Amino acid sequence: MKKIKFGIIGVGRLGYEHACNLASRIPGAELVAICDGNEKRAKEVAEELGVSAVYSDPKAMCENPEVETVAIVTNTASHVEMIKIAMEAGKHVFCEKPLADTVEKCKEAEAIIEAHPDQIFMLGFMRRFDYSYEVAKKKIENGDIGDLILVRCYSQDPRAIIEGTLEYAPRSGGQFIDMSIHDIDLIRWLTGSEPDKLWAIGGCYEFPQYKDWDDGDNVSCLIQMKNNIMAFFFAGRTAAHGSAVETEIVGTKGMLRIGATPTDSLVEVFSENGVCRECYQDFITRWHYAYIHEMEVYCEAVREGKQPTPNVYDGTKSTAIAFNCKESFLKNDLLKMD
Amino acid sequence: MKKIKFGIIGVGRLGYEHACNLASRIPGAELVAICDGNEKRAKEVAEELGVSAVYSDPKAMCENPEVETVAIVTNTASHVEMIKIAMEAGKHVFCEKPLADTVEKCKEAEAIIEAHPDQIFMLGFMRRFDYSYEVAKKKIENGDIGDLILVRCYSQDPRAIIEGTLEYAPRSGGQFIDMSIHDIDLIRWLTGSEPDKLWAIGGCYEFPQYKDWDDGDNVSCLIQMKNNIMAFFFAGRTAAHGSAVETEIVGTKGMLRIGATPTDSLVEVFSENGVCRECYQDFITRWHYAYIHEMEVYCEAVREGKQPTPNVYDGTKSTAIAFNCKESFLKNDLLKMD
Amino acid sequence: MKKIKFGIIGVGRLGYEHACNLASRIPGAELVAICDGNEKRAKEVAEELGVSAVYSDPKAMCENPEVETVAIVTNTASHVEMIKIAMEAGKHVFCEKPLADTVEKCKEAEAIIEAHPDQIFMLGFMRRFDYSYEVAKKKIENGDIGDLILVRCYSQDPRAIIEGTLEYAPRSGGQFIDMSIHDIDLIRWLTGSEPDKLWAIGGCYEFPQYKDWDDGDNVSCLIQMKNNIMAFFFAGRTAAHGSAVETEIVGTKGMLRIGATPTDSLVEVFSENGVCRECYQDFITRWHYAYIHEMEVYCEAVREGKQPTPNVYDGTKSTAIAFNCKESFLKNDLLKMD
Amino acid sequence: MKKIKFGIIGVGRLGYEHACNLASRIPGAELVAICDGNEKRAKEVAEELGVSAVYSDPKAMCENPEVETVAIVTNTASHVEMIKIAMEAGKHVFCEKPLADTVEKCKEAEAIIEAHPDQIFMLGFMRRFDYSYEVAKKKIENGDIGDLILVRCYSQDPRAIIEGTLEYAPRSGGQFIDMSIHDIDLIRWLTGSEPDKLWAIGGCYEFPQYKDWDDGDNVSCLIQMKNNIMAFFFAGRTAAHGSAVETEIVGTKGMLRIGATPTDSLVEVFSENGVCRECYQDFITRWHYAYIHEMEVYCEAVREGKQPTPNVYDGTKSTAIAFNCKESFLKNDLLKMD
Repeated sequence: MKKIKFGIIGVGRLGYEHACNLASRIPGAELVAICDGNEKRAKEVAEELGVSAVYSDPKAMCENPEVETVAIVTNTASHVEMIKIAMEAGKHVFCEKPLADTVEKCKEAEAIIEAHPDQIFMLGFMRRFDYSYEVAKKKIENGDIGDLILVRCYSQDPRAIIEGTLEYAPRSGGQFIDMSIHDIDLIRWLTGSEPDKLWAIGGCYEFPQYKDWDDGDNVSCLIQMKNNIMAFFFAGRTAAHGSAVETEIVGTKGMLRIGATPTDSLVEVFSENGVCRECYQDFITRWHYAYIHEMEVYCEAVREGKQPTPNVYDGTKSTAIAFNCKESFLKNDLLKMD
Repeated sequence: MKKIKFGIIGVGRLGYEHACNLASRIPGAELVAICDGNEKRAKEVAEELGVSAVYSDPKAMCENPEVETVAIVTNTASHVEMIKIAMEAGKHVFCEKPLADTVEKCKEAEAIIEAHPDQIFMLGFMRRFDYSYEVAKKKIENGDIGDLILVRCYSQDPRAIIEGTLEYAPRSGGQFIDMSIHDIDLIRWLTGSEPDKLWAIGGCYEFPQYKDWDDGDNVSCLIQMKNNIMAFFFAGRTAAHGSAVETEIVGTKGMLRIGATPTDSLVEVFSENGVCRECYQDFITRWHYAYIHEMEVYCEAVREGKQPTPNVYDGTKSTAIAFNCKESFLKNDLLKMD
Repeated sequence: MKKIKFGIIGVGRLGYEHACNLASRIPGAELVAICDGNEKRAKEVAEELGVSAVYSDPKAMCENPEVETVAIVTNTASHVEMIKIAMEAGKHVFCEKPLADTVEKCKEAEAIIEAHPDQIFMLGFMRRFDYSYEVAKKKIENGDIGDLILVRCYSQDPRAIIEGTLEYAPRSGGQFIDMSIHDIDLIRWLTGSEPDKLWAIGGCYEFPQYKDWDDGDNVSCLIQMKNNIMAFFFAGRTAAHGSAVETEIVGTKGMLRIGATPTDSLVEVFSENGVCRECYQDFITRWHYAYIHEMEVYCEAVREGKQPTPNVYDGTKSTAIAFNCKESFLKNDLLKMD
Repeated sequence: MKKIKFGIIGVGRLGYEHACNLASRIPGAELVAICDGNEKRAKEVAEELGVSAVYSDPKAMCENPEVETVAIVTNTASHVEMIKIAMEAGKHVFCEKPLADTVEKCKEAEAIIEAHPDQIFMLGFMRRFDYSYEVAKKKIENGDIGDLILVRCYSQDPRAIIEGTLEYAPRSGGQFIDMSIHDIDLIRWLTGSEPDKLWAIGGCYEFPQYKDWDDGDNVSCLIQMKNNIMAFFFAGRTAAHGSAVETEIVGTKGMLRIGATPTDSLVEVFSENGVCRECYQDFITRWHYAYIHEMEVYCEAVREGKQPTPNVYDGTKSTAIAFNCKESFLKNDLLKMD
């Protein structure tokens, strides 16, 4: 099996995770170049991972002919610019979610990618590659739960990390763009449809500062899909129990629930608190293997020369819906899609 | 402890359950009279339970001086008429939910009950008296989960009984009035607030006949309460796993989930299907002890001469909200409450 | 349905529970007489339950012709004497477990009961009447799990009540006779066989005082049944999580686990501790409905004039086995049954 | 981080898994040579994994100077011979469990390894490296559950693979040596002690052919450890639900249960069967990450030049205990250790 040679742009927290995976956890991948605006950081990670080509300028890295594909893990605002640099240098591109911080930039990304149809592009909605989600998707496609009625999605960040959450909040894009976009992608993926109407609500239940950012610390949204499947999502920043992502699919013949008890291990603790399952405290831990598996799928796509999903349009659509949710939330009114 | 002497009107399926409970499962109660429009049925039940006073006419039963209180378990449409008969005969009244099939009748019930302030009245929202719900309520009042953010309620009937469900559907009042009214009551009880805005959706995912009844086989509703707590409920008639009532309360300091696995026993079955918990197939089994406990609470109220809850206003309000949901569902539009 | 008229001997903690059940929670039963060596206690309970016949002398109560059956809930050492008094007075007898504190007394009980074949006798191994155990038994009889391989039984008392446990320990008969006898009965009932060989071990893991009583605070035993089914039981006094009784039956086609999470309600608590189920803290709460149901079964037996199980021989055998376990434990050696 | 260069001997089912892990899933490892008696198989795997040095003779491979360490994944009977070859060639050695098929050979392995004190040796009891077991061990060491009272271990193979199980059975060494040895290792590891007395029982509950191999299809054993902790293990070949390994540790202050529901994913399936969790059907899937993590630990030991555990003595002791269990089982008698 030919190893796909990656250059990575951005080795912050999640970028570092991807770099480690590409360096030594994915049979079909090899990490050959590292780029980060913070050159010191780039050098440290490169040394740790035994990578010799180090850059602070993405363009320079993309001129390296050894690099076959670029993994973009920079801040959201710069994603499309990086896609442009990499695509124009002839590289395949893996880009972290969300695609961009505005719908306009998403459209720009579409144009760039359409102009390079032979280069592979994939967007990093990693939940689709989590084993549990794959199992659920297969059961649905197999007809095990009949026709879909309702998809319910929860995404909760642990209260334990609230300080970091609050610090990042002003530039995060808010709950809908930063957090719920994962659930919006899952809803589209699971229902095979797009929102027809939606209504988003929420508020500041504990942290009034979210108000200043036109946001809430906990929000929810009810969506009527064009194929009439119902969808409901909830996103919160104050979960006492940990990093909880739960998804439920109600069908006419059965129901699936993923992650209702977001357990960190197979250990049950019997104590004064009763019988307890401890939860993930950290999204990178929760999705560790999904991050690996999405790269495996991406490498396979590169090797086979076939465009994978989630693609750029998935990125545009989920971003647009997230902005629709925010609009509905701010107006506190029902929104009818075009 | 003085035993409260009951006459019961209506000994259909649920009425029979109440009659059995009053006859021999509630320390503070005694069943002394039975009335049913179907006199043969009334006699059979009376004989089985050792009750000598049997009636087909509610008025006649209410003239019996031995009867201190009347339990009304007739069809919803006749509830208010029965309340009037019993109240005017000087009896205390326990009335099954829902209070009535129109808001106008609910208002009429209010007037009747207000005219007899010394007679006890209680409405049978039995879920409030289920041990699990009592445990949850206590934890909330104790501040264990902080301030409330979201209440999510599911009520699902088993697909296994769909034939009976369909037969009863046309005269049931529909999902919102017949089924979701329980969740509406729970939402009001748990949040201590009233809906400000709501949007109800749903449809016929398997049984198109619900369309003819201006209803869906599965519906849901998102509610913004006046105190800004979010509420979401879902009601369905096609649950493969059984009679499932689940309620979740998300707070700023923790979450409670009631009945997420609606288990019939403490048995886990390890088989080719994996590790399984079997579910209730029957709402009377699920709420057996809640039905007993609500009567214990009611008897205590009669003995102490203090008006209990849920009261007639709880009945009116939940009915009005259920009709609001139906209106929103039929218009497929957001509804702002007064 | 004819109501069976009970006189109860002994209204301590569990006797009071039985008295309340007989007075008003069992359709086919009526409590007409109360006897307790502590006459003041007898009078208090009688007044509370509306019973007019009060005694401090069991013989006197058994002369009361209104009393059809006697429920014996005295200390274990006096059970057989009470059985004798009641049987010789012509009464049916329900006796709490264990049958007696020596095998000799058990044999004496057998003789008394055999001398009165027309009088009903039943021993109170209430676990057999718990809904979950009934469900499991039915599945086994139905062949759902194939042939039996292993029965595993845990009985744990909550550490929270250790003071009372320690106070009662010296006169309890020890773990095997007081606690494991329930599991011994379950093993006999589930396997339909008797022990062939057994080895009991254990010790004082926290409370050295058990040593003085020839006992351990936690003990276990492996049993080879005559039909070669394996059985293992564990009994402990120091469970942090509550009053835990778990039983597992491994068969060639499946496994059943009862009470692996001994939950007090259907509430899951999501908190800093993870996702927790709270447990029973009290055996009377755990077995509340089993205590009621065993009396229903007993009443039915009296009405029908048919001897029920568990019978006197179940009492003798489980007592003998418990003493065998103790012998094995004290000798720390394998014991071969006759 | 320096990459440790591995040669692997044996690329059957589990050997192939190790080869894949070493080739591309372990940051600190590199697979440089493959040896298998079946040369065709060796070549296929080498080609797939991009390894150029291929051998059918272990000695030849051990002469390759590029190979720093040998991973032995051959049949149990040949382990010690392979250890000898590798050690004498100056290589570090990782050897799959069990160490050998006789205690004599284990002793021989001890002598070989002691003769090469500067070469690292580690035995592959992978369960110790499973995340859930690591979590449990840490909690125990942290005192979270107080002093240990009882360790209970279950190892069950899925009935679904019974044909392969039966085929392999005659040369497997039997339940105690092949399967329970894992639990014996866990018991030693968790209790920090050795057996004082033990009694093993069991039989042929479904497959009489095990009798011919002096074995049972399901067996169990009660062990009294020298520090008086109780241990119980059960091993079976007929589990309907899947590949189930469960371990429970009862302490004076709490209990831990690992793998009580051996779930394959975070998906709960709500269907006619109730609420179900699906289980692992395959031990390689169950222990995938434990196999990776044990190699990470081994590589770290090689890099640091420090002898890791489990070591050769762990291998000898667990093997000796497994033979003791078999002896007790065949004699059906209690066995006292020296």
